[in-house]
Amino acid sequence: MGVDDDSAGPTVRQHRETTALDLRSGAVRADARGGVQHTAQIDPTAVPPPPAAPEPTLPRTVEQHLDEILAAVPQPDAIELAVLDAQGLLCAEEVVSKRALPAYDQAALDGYAARSDDVARATPEAPVQLSVVGESTAGSADPSSIGPGLAQKVAAGALLPGGADVVVPAVWTDRGVVTVTVQAPVGPGGYVRRAGDDVASGTPAVAVGTPIGPAQISLLAAVGRERVLVRPRPRVGILSGGGELVDITTDPAPGQAVDVNSYALAAAARDAGADAYRSGIVPADPRRLSEVLESQTLRSDLVLISGTFADEGDAVREALGALGDVRFRPVTMYPGPVQAFGRIGREQVPVIIVPGEPVAALVAFEVFVRPAIRLMLGKRQLFRRTVQAIAAQPVYSPLGYRQYLHGQVMRHPDGGYVVEPLGDGDEAMLARMARANCLIVVDEDVTEVAAGGLVTVMPLLLGG
Amino acid sequence: MGVDDDSAGPTVRQHRETTALDLRSGAVRADARGGVQHTAQIDPTAVPPPPAAPEPTLPRTVEQHLDEILAAVPQPDAIELAVLDAQGLLCAEEVVSKRALPAYDQAALDGYAARSDDVARATPEAPVQLSVVGESTAGSADPSSIGPGLAQKVAAGALLPGGADVVVPAVWTDRGVVTVTVQAPVGPGGYVRRAGDDVASGTPAVAVGTPIGPAQISLLAAVGRERVLVRPRPRVGILSGGGELVDITTDPAPGQAVDVNSYALAAAARDAGADAYRSGIVPADPRRLSEVLESQTLRSDLVLISGTFADEGDAVREALGALGDVRFRPVTMYPGPVQAFGRIGREQVPVIIVPGEPVAALVAFEVFVRPAIRLMLGKRQLFRRTVQAIAAQPVYSPLGYRQYLHGQVMRHPDGGYVVEPLGDGDEAMLARMARANCLIVVDEDVTEVAAGGLVTVMPLLLGG
Repeated sequence: MGVDDDSAGPTVRQHRETTALDLRSGAVRADARGGVQHTAQIDPTAVPPPPAAPEPTLPRTVEQHLDEILAAVPQPDAIELAVLDAQGLLCAEEVVSKRALPAYDQAALDGYAARSDDVARATPEAPVQLSVVGESTAGSADPSSIGPGLAQKVAAGALLPGGADVVVPAVWTDRGVVTVTVQAPVGPGGYVRRAGDDVASGTPAVAVGTPIGPAQISLLAAVGRERVLVRPRPRVGILSGGGELVDITTDPAPGQAVDVNSYALAAAARDAGADAYRSGIVPADPRRLSEVLESQTLRSDLVLISGTFADEGDAVREALGALGDVRFRPVTMYPGPVQAFGRIGREQVPVIIVPGEPVAALVAFEVFVRPAIRLMLGKRQLFRRTVQAIAAQPVYSPLGYRQYLHGQVMRHPDGGYVVEPLGDGDEAMLARMARANCLIVVDEDVTEVAAGGLVTVMPLLLGG
Repeated sequence: MGVDDDSAGPTVRQHRETTALDLRSGAVRADARGGVQHTAQIDPTAVPPPPAAPEPTLPRTVEQHLDEILAAVPQPDAIELAVLDAQGLLCAEEVVSKRALPAYDQAALDGYAARSDDVARATPEAPVQLSVVGESTAGSADPSSIGPGLAQKVAAGALLPGGADVVVPAVWTDRGVVTVTVQAPVGPGGYVRRAGDDVASGTPAVAVGTPIGPAQISLLAAVGRERVLVRPRPRVGILSGGGELVDITTDPAPGQAVDVNSYALAAAARDAGADAYRSGIVPADPRRLSEVLESQTLRSDLVLISGTFADEGDAVREALGALGDVRFRPVTMYPGPVQAFGRIGREQVPVIIVPGEPVAALVAFEVFVRPAIRLMLGKRQLFRRTVQAIAAQPVYSPLGYRQYLHGQVMRHPDGGYVVEPLGDGDEAMLARMARANCLIVVDEDVTEVAAGGLVTVMPLLLGG
């Protein structure tokens, strides 16, 4: 397992210049993937390859870490679900209708089926009188037909009698029972729905990649589909680790902390569209710990662990290392300047490790986990929309780091948005986070935005 | 039961002027509630009251029908749920924290706990050297203390030793083990989280009416709440009726139609936040029908039925009439110019009846049922946001009726929105509806909007 050092920087506020100096003192590589190009040609067979050097602990950008995760998450196989269970998921098949919709020529509204030859010239001044022969209600399957001078009373959706090519709306008649007086003209095809007008038999009704909502469920039911192939909800196993953690039922002693992350991350994963399985705090015993992790790889499409496993010898790091390749790396972001990702188990299940601090955990979820879940769901739009907003207060950020701050964004009466930052990025402020409705994103090269300046804001709408 | 006539008007397209004439020929009362004021004073004891006349079938506006529904839906009692099950619901209690958050004074980041007197004047040129006495990791509960000239290595979240009032970020030191050199000043309180900074013990953590999402679940767990009182999801029983209906598994014969509404409405109700119970097609047998309806009143906070029960003697109307007061009324809207509402059973459970045509059913759901479900959930925002959009095609609407048309709305490259109408309001066009992402709303007094004109658009985002 490649395990890198956890060199958490400060949440800079008071001593910006000093920090900026310190942050720049490390060797920074702008693009870890494309950075070093060996242009000298070496015959690879002439000399033995050098022993693999431990990867240096160079900080990576948010994008680099995200790219690694998105490139590695699996695409779960499509599954067939009952249409109602498919709600919110993406269709994974082209649903070809075996039926025409509508299934037969029918009245588009309540009125009288007639022949256009008879009624095309009716007016209030020169009404046309027809003899009413029977009635066709929705659901009646008796085929009938009418000839010249005749009409049949029809309800919306009712089978059109043979010979009829128009429906005269009831309001344009005297609603007669034996004879009916038509007071307005209806041209050929008027108020008639032809079989197949909506969907012709043998043509696609729902395309691959269509999000399935109430209207799609309506259409699927209409073409006779009880079940449909969809991209499934990824199963996300959720664990938290750390010697300080106690369960929610336990009153924490000094130095201890309640496991809030397994709850919050399960809620966030479910909100993002996953089936979340909260396993709670990982066992302290190394063998039990390995068993729990391994069992997760058999049940999950993605394993999500929160915790600050700072030390090289940490039990969770050891257990993950025994199961696969999980790398802890500094990432140029606040909160959460150390993130980890890897794959474990025979199935090479991806594991995302987010910081143990609850605010940092939910920020990392937004930045790395939610896009991964949406990718697994097949969604085209992986990321939340951002808007530009006027900062109501100054916003600070360490140079070289992307800062995520919780805030309250609202519409400005004159148009656009205003955002009020809540706090300073401290990862322990849960009540502050709970009042937020957005994340303010301050880019790496910005250290300060004055009040009145524009900042990028990511509204945290639930659901969408 | 007060049952009114089903006088469905036409979906006017070809003969606008004639229809407008017809629609205006009926007695229209602008405001059914405040319309007639009896100013003459009558002594109510002097003459017997006149026999209750059948209510005239005057059309009512969308707002009048909606107002009646919103005034009648019950507020289900708050229930206690496990925090994860509370996701998406509104908090129904003021959650007062029995703990301080953070629970104890702690390091805000990795570094060295020290005394500000010792480090307040440290600089890179004049660093300060301190002796390191021990280490405090997150989870360690051993109270310790430091004196002048001493420092303790601390991890973020670790208990601050007695005597210390600052944490020097590790990056501003030489990270020494026996002695540490501090190269930057830290003022009193720097990088220390004080107990109760986030939430003081005995103060409210989550207020009544707060929507519970991942951040609130994080906070609730932190204050030790496993369960929380919330406004529950309303239980909505969903039925469909009509002699033409066959189940989704049956291939419909000519004149028959598949029951798509019980599926589509269940999906829509769930999307609006309800627990939806799909019961499918109501039985044809009058006794079984009554039993099914009555059993719904014992299980549901709201009963939702789709179907076009046009005739006075219709079995569903009869059965509803025997159980309570359900009124069918013309409503000045398209699609769905007849809607019904009432209350049935001993519990006076509200019953909303939407049209049987699938497009009209989902439009009526949007207009009448979704706001009712959101009201029962306690949401402040009952209605979808609307935007003004440029019509890419002309839009027509019958005079005196509010027209709802499906459309595709997209952002205009120059700002604002453009909407493409899909179809003409015909209630049988499911594939067309399934391609829509919005409803276009054309007011009662507008009969035509030219291409390029502005229309009101209601984006149909799922979830929101």
